[in-house]
Amino acid sequence: MFYRCRCPAHSQAYSHTYNRGKIFQCCRSLVVKFAVLADINQDLQNMGARNVCLMTDRTLSQLPPVGVVLDSLTKHGVKYKIYEDVRVEPTDKSFKAAIDFAKQGHFDVYVAVGGGSVIDTCKAANLYASHPEAEFLDFVNAPIGKGKPITATLKPLIAVPTTAGTGSETTGVAIFDFENLKAKTGIANRALKPTLGMVDPLHTLHMPSRVAANSGFDVLCHALESFTALPYNLRSPCPSNPINRPAYQGSNPISDVWARHALKIVAKYLKRAVRDAGDVEARSSMHLASVFAGIGFGNAGVHLCHGMSYPIAGNVKTHRAKGYNVEHPIVPHGLSVVLTSPAVFAFTANMCPERHLEAAQILGTDVSSIKKDDAGRVLADTLRSFLYDLEVEDGLSSVGYTKEDIPSLVKGTIPQERVTKLSPRAHTEEDLTALFAASMKLY
Amino acid sequence: MFYRCRCPAHSQAYSHTYNRGKIFQCCRSLVVKFAVLADINQDLQNMGARNVCLMTDRTLSQLPPVGVVLDSLTKHGVKYKIYEDVRVEPTDKSFKAAIDFAKQGHFDVYVAVGGGSVIDTCKAANLYASHPEAEFLDFVNAPIGKGKPITATLKPLIAVPTTAGTGSETTGVAIFDFENLKAKTGIANRALKPTLGMVDPLHTLHMPSRVAANSGFDVLCHALESFTALPYNLRSPCPSNPINRPAYQGSNPISDVWARHALKIVAKYLKRAVRDAGDVEARSSMHLASVFAGIGFGNAGVHLCHGMSYPIAGNVKTHRAKGYNVEHPIVPHGLSVVLTSPAVFAFTANMCPERHLEAAQILGTDVSSIKKDDAGRVLADTLRSFLYDLEVEDGLSSVGYTKEDIPSLVKGTIPQERVTKLSPRAHTEEDLTALFAASMKLY
Repeated sequence: MFYRCRCPAHSQAYSHTYNRGKIFQCCRSLVVKFAVLADINQDLQNMGARNVCLMTDRTLSQLPPVGVVLDSLTKHGVKYKIYEDVRVEPTDKSFKAAIDFAKQGHFDVYVAVGGGSVIDTCKAANLYASHPEAEFLDFVNAPIGKGKPITATLKPLIAVPTTAGTGSETTGVAIFDFENLKAKTGIANRALKPTLGMVDPLHTLHMPSRVAANSGFDVLCHALESFTALPYNLRSPCPSNPINRPAYQGSNPISDVWARHALKIVAKYLKRAVRDAGDVEARSSMHLASVFAGIGFGNAGVHLCHGMSYPIAGNVKTHRAKGYNVEHPIVPHGLSVVLTSPAVFAFTANMCPERHLEAAQILGTDVSSIKKDDAGRVLADTLRSFLYDLEVEDGLSSVGYTKEDIPSLVKGTIPQERVTKLSPRAHTEEDLTALFAASMKLY
Repeated sequence: MFYRCRCPAHSQAYSHTYNRGKIFQCCRSLVVKFAVLADINQDLQNMGARNVCLMTDRTLSQLPPVGVVLDSLTKHGVKYKIYEDVRVEPTDKSFKAAIDFAKQGHFDVYVAVGGGSVIDTCKAANLYASHPEAEFLDFVNAPIGKGKPITATLKPLIAVPTTAGTGSETTGVAIFDFENLKAKTGIANRALKPTLGMVDPLHTLHMPSRVAANSGFDVLCHALESFTALPYNLRSPCPSNPINRPAYQGSNPISDVWARHALKIVAKYLKRAVRDAGDVEARSSMHLASVFAGIGFGNAGVHLCHGMSYPIAGNVKTHRAKGYNVEHPIVPHGLSVVLTSPAVFAFTANMCPERHLEAAQILGTDVSSIKKDDAGRVLADTLRSFLYDLEVEDGLSSVGYTKEDIPSLVKGTIPQERVTKLSPRAHTEEDLTALFAASMKLY
């Protein structure tokens, strides 16, 4: 991950104000604002780019980050094609459309400007264009797909995140909605990791309040889940060869550092970032937290909140999410993840109560006189209060689910073994049923 | 960086005791102890190794980590050659001898088992064997060398650190003593970064107490210097192309995380690790701290303590260091670094007093009522007290230097611009003279 601040004007402004706690505050005019991204041409030249694929979505294609990249490409005469049909919350069908575009384009460098949907779609397009003989299911996670190893060298991919949640710029994971199964799954392999992330917090200032909230919840759960995930040395079976290790290794001393650090930033800045789009310090901090949590969970993994979120998003009926400019019903990823978090951490706490208490403490609860046996309840209460303050929908019932839906939500969770097996506590279908039931209402 | 714990016996033992704060305590018998390293053959196979260069030094060549690697290579019929003539505190001459060995061997993978001297020597051997046409000075840091860019792809290098200080397994730096100049310099380029680090704390249990202390001081100063280094966005000149960025970027939000974290471990465990070689938890923690500080300073850089340490080590006259099995006079690297630290941080404090106070606090001083103006004095006093407790030699005078040596020590510091320019406070030759003078006695 590199932090860009080469333009003299931007650099001076940044450094000058950074020391005073007002990051970027004097460089908010558009010309300077995207000066850093305007340099992308140099990175492309260094990568030997002659034919660039720029991926984004229809909303972002009208916004400055994409415009600046296009200007840079045009100004320097770099040949490119733009693909702006990325679907927010992508599906196998939308992945395949992007893959076809990539295969026909014979691109030598990819640039993804957007949130997790855009970056994930671009990873998949790069992968299958580099493996033209492969069937779509070849690389999709088992048991849904075949989980084959990736043998080709992918083309360089520059990821420019414009939300503060996914961490996709740091990970080797691409998630999509498998429409036939009504559940999300993905492709997970280190080979998918972007070559370069251009992390400029100014790109997140355009986010509507609810997008800031939901992507922030993704950061929150990346941190909480990777911090409480099964420790790496308890994962089994151990592969006989290190090359067969999964992308998600279990919690470990390095991911713990990132999880704790990201959680502290969420505790300090998420509410401010949601409530005031002009709070540049808060939005900047959350953008960094997204990267940090990404480095952590990208190595440690996530578990039940994410595993259960995929059918919550995949089975959506009619829910329309505020702040999202899409034509289809949607439960935004971060929202689908966070709605089960109180129930999940109440369930997992007895496996590592110290970590659950530490998380509650970081999120602002005084845990000095709390017994270990109460760790789950205390973290769950802390999360409910945090979500209430941020006006989060009151549980699964408020995004369109009833008790009758629980069997299909459980059914959609079963194939998410790639992540759910990292839960510190083993669980049955009955446990999942109880967790969904307990998440119907939060307050 | 990967943490190895694949062997079922080792994995179980590790996990079982880890939760009880006694890391590894039930797997200290040799067979299990090096089970992880014994798997190195698989990594070598995955890298396509057919002709391996194993580098180490004469002391380590008699110790278990090297024996286990040799057994693994022999057992699996991998062709290899061993080079055990690495000099502790290497010189241009010793680098060149290793380079000649590498050039003649036409190796396809390198394995370095040892401390920073071994890993750095192996990096240099790999570099020049991959660039057979290059002159030795071509890649040496300017202004001493030419600092040319590295264009060839180096062979894979597996680093197995056996001390807890250097962090060399994480960095793109190789340091040596340029005998003509009586000063250390080095080669710094991301291309030198090892492909894989095998970080097994059990490898550090053999370290004599003074080696544990001195390598721990290296960790301490890596953390303190990278934490207080010039911020990345104040570094100048900004290169016009990102490919020309130096390896050392200045302090930044990511290196700060590692510096703080490593410093906390040093504060908690260094004294225990020095005083009791059998304190596996402390030695294990310091080994991880070495990695963490390495990731931090490997990106942010170090400054005056390291810049001034090179002539302190290079001008050594007759000093013999306890615990080091070498035939030549030596001021061990970590010791040469830490002896100036009280003076250095008293000098730099006014540029970022908050960070100096935070460091003093992490090291155990109550700073709640300390004024910013006193930050330098307080951190210096904290360091002196810390060093006194660890029975560190009383300043430069106790390793053989007098006031008459100061001009040559200053002269040897001037060419270390690569690191000294990262000092948060600009400095003159007079300042350096005063810093050396203030470091003659510590207590």
